Amino acid sequence: MTRHYNFCAGPAAMPEAVLERARDEMLDYRGHGLSVMEMSHRSPEYVAIAEQAEADLRELLAIPDNYRVLFTQGGATLQFSAVPYNLLGRGGRANFLHTGIWSKKAIAEARHLAGDVHVAASSEESGHSAVPRQKDIVLSEDAAYLHYTANETIGGLEFDYIPEARRPDGSEVPLVCDMSSSILSGPLDVSRFGVIYAGAQKNIGPAGLVVVIVREDLLDRARDDMPSLLGYRELAEAGSMINTPATYSWYLAGLVFDWLKGEIGGLDAMNALNDRKAGKLYDAIDASALYANPITLRNRSRMNVPFVLADPSLDKAFLAEAEATGLLNLKGHRSVGGMRASLYNAVPEAAVDALIAFMADFEKRRG
Amino acid sequence: MTRHYNFCAGPAAMPEAVLERARDEMLDYRGHGLSVMEMSHRSPEYVAIAEQAEADLRELLAIPDNYRVLFTQGGATLQFSAVPYNLLGRGGRANFLHTGIWSKKAIAEARHLAGDVHVAASSEESGHSAVPRQKDIVLSEDAAYLHYTANETIGGLEFDYIPEARRPDGSEVPLVCDMSSSILSGPLDVSRFGVIYAGAQKNIGPAGLVVVIVREDLLDRARDDMPSLLGYRELAEAGSMINTPATYSWYLAGLVFDWLKGEIGGLDAMNALNDRKAGKLYDAIDASALYANPITLRNRSRMNVPFVLADPSLDKAFLAEAEATGLLNLKGHRSVGGMRASLYNAVPEAAVDALIAFMADFEKRRG
Repeated sequence: MTRHYNFCAGPAAMPEAVLERARDEMLDYRGHGLSVMEMSHRSPEYVAIAEQAEADLRELLAIPDNYRVLFTQGGATLQFSAVPYNLLGRGGRANFLHTGIWSKKAIAEARHLAGDVHVAASSEESGHSAVPRQKDIVLSEDAAYLHYTANETIGGLEFDYIPEARRPDGSEVPLVCDMSSSILSGPLDVSRFGVIYAGAQKNIGPAGLVVVIVREDLLDRARDDMPSLLGYRELAEAGSMINTPATYSWYLAGLVFDWLKGEIGGLDAMNALNDRKAGKLYDAIDASALYANPITLRNRSRMNVPFVLADPSLDKAFLAEAEATGLLNLKGHRSVGGMRASLYNAVPEAAVDALIAFMADFEKRRG
Repeated sequence: MTRHYNFCAGPAAMPEAVLERARDEMLDYRGHGLSVMEMSHRSPEYVAIAEQAEADLRELLAIPDNYRVLFTQGGATLQFSAVPYNLLGRGGRANFLHTGIWSKKAIAEARHLAGDVHVAASSEESGHSAVPRQKDIVLSEDAAYLHYTANETIGGLEFDYIPEARRPDGSEVPLVCDMSSSILSGPLDVSRFGVIYAGAQKNIGPAGLVVVIVREDLLDRARDDMPSLLGYRELAEAGSMINTPATYSWYLAGLVFDWLKGEIGGLDAMNALNDRKAGKLYDAIDASALYANPITLRNRSRMNVPFVLADPSLDKAFLAEAEATGLLNLKGHRSVGGMRASLYNAVPEAAVDALIAFMADFEKRRG
């Protein structure tokens, strides 16, 4: 068996310790005589797995008691629909911060389902190289909520602050955040948010699971024309089991939470490690003549580090040699080109060190 | 390691050979240096896995070329919404055959999203002990499609024929079938259907994946007010990758298809095995004084065998002793009580033999 270093933007690297546990428990979960994926979601064994996962996530993020945690399906993309369905039942308009490809998709889907939306601030003019400042965010008078994308996975652009969401008259509206590619990368003040959602396939677990954290007082704002399975209230009341949930993915998420608590030591420790990993890669890029990252310093993503080569004709050789060295999935998103190294929680510091060493060597030989 | 016999109605038993392959490939998929769940869904390695799974399913079911196969999320329950969204864009009414709890849920969701529906036939008067005959099915003049549930997982009621779907004027409408708990149990004439969908967690793979087989000419009948992720046309055009699909579940489904082709020898062989397994269990029930099944002979489900004990005060002892013998998940659905043995493809004949032996012994001692 060989394990390479995997910089994929998602589905992303899983902690090796988690994969080992999943492997060892695959045919017989702790003496129960069956695999987790063969368990009834209503069995005591499975309910214990599901509840422990939620408890560990609550502990990691210090989620207040007045928030519900939902484990559901369809990825962040289905939440692009679920959010307007669940929050626009009393009228008002969806407000957005536009910071790149993922916020654009969320905006397009809200428009599709709810008609007009308001873009409260945009980084488009800067080529999405810096997120809007708080003073530049102007909500509409009829704002029902403000949605933003904490970390743009493709652009490599990350918010360095949690926006305030106030209408011009000063009244507060719920803040909604797509946190797919940065959740659990460090501590978080959940109480600032109305809704947080995150596709699992970066920092939580396998693709196909999405976690929603929603403040209880927002459960009664839903439109009535949505698929029942998308209802936050319905999901909350059913313990995320309106129908059979993605049981095995939920279990794997639980193993990741357990790894974060135990092996990593919690989100403060994870945060320091992520600072170190991203810091040294950006330092190497900035010190080089061959590599460059276009994002303003304060908004450089710790999770996704895009970079370009001064001579793009070297891209192919860079990727081929990296792969031959066991450094996988460094190709940038097809919509932007270049390179991208995703440094999610499960990517070990040794992987970053190996990448930096390879980049330096490549520059020396070919730069 | 111990493996018990698992009669769970879903998530259900997986073929042991599939679990063994998944275990062996968990940390390093065939020398690629990473787990399947860590692969980009757009990588050549993963695309090969996904395409092979579809090809194998097409081969198993002999799916005609004018059908698209979609691998998506949200279970059959989200398809209860997706079907009316995708098929009612040109007007008309959803028509249903009502045969139990699952058809009832599909009806309720269509009503919720599309208003009035027409029940073309119902087995409610018989207590859902026999499916409606063809001659009793009367579609509405404005029928847009006819939906039925091939096998009622909770009731243990299975169609012994494929209904014809014609309006009173003789014109044909698409036949839509929830085949969650019977797909792949034997050969199928797919050309009779407009849409087939099936939650994976019975005969396909892990919960969280749903397979949709849709005739191409039905891709242009969608309403425009649905979440984009539910669109059959959108999914078909994107190769089921509008967003990140449930990659690991799709891979496991592929392993199951491969097992059906290789180890089982295809759906004719699977069909014969399922006939034998269900046949001997029903024979044992019918020959006993303690156990009884209420379903009319021609509609007894091969996949889900519900039965009651003549003396319900013995239920608890029956379940406890069965579990102690390594026969798991025989409790009937909480809405109906009694017992239920689910005999999906992955439940080996030896499990059925062991169950029958236990039932006989229990009857002798306690009956």
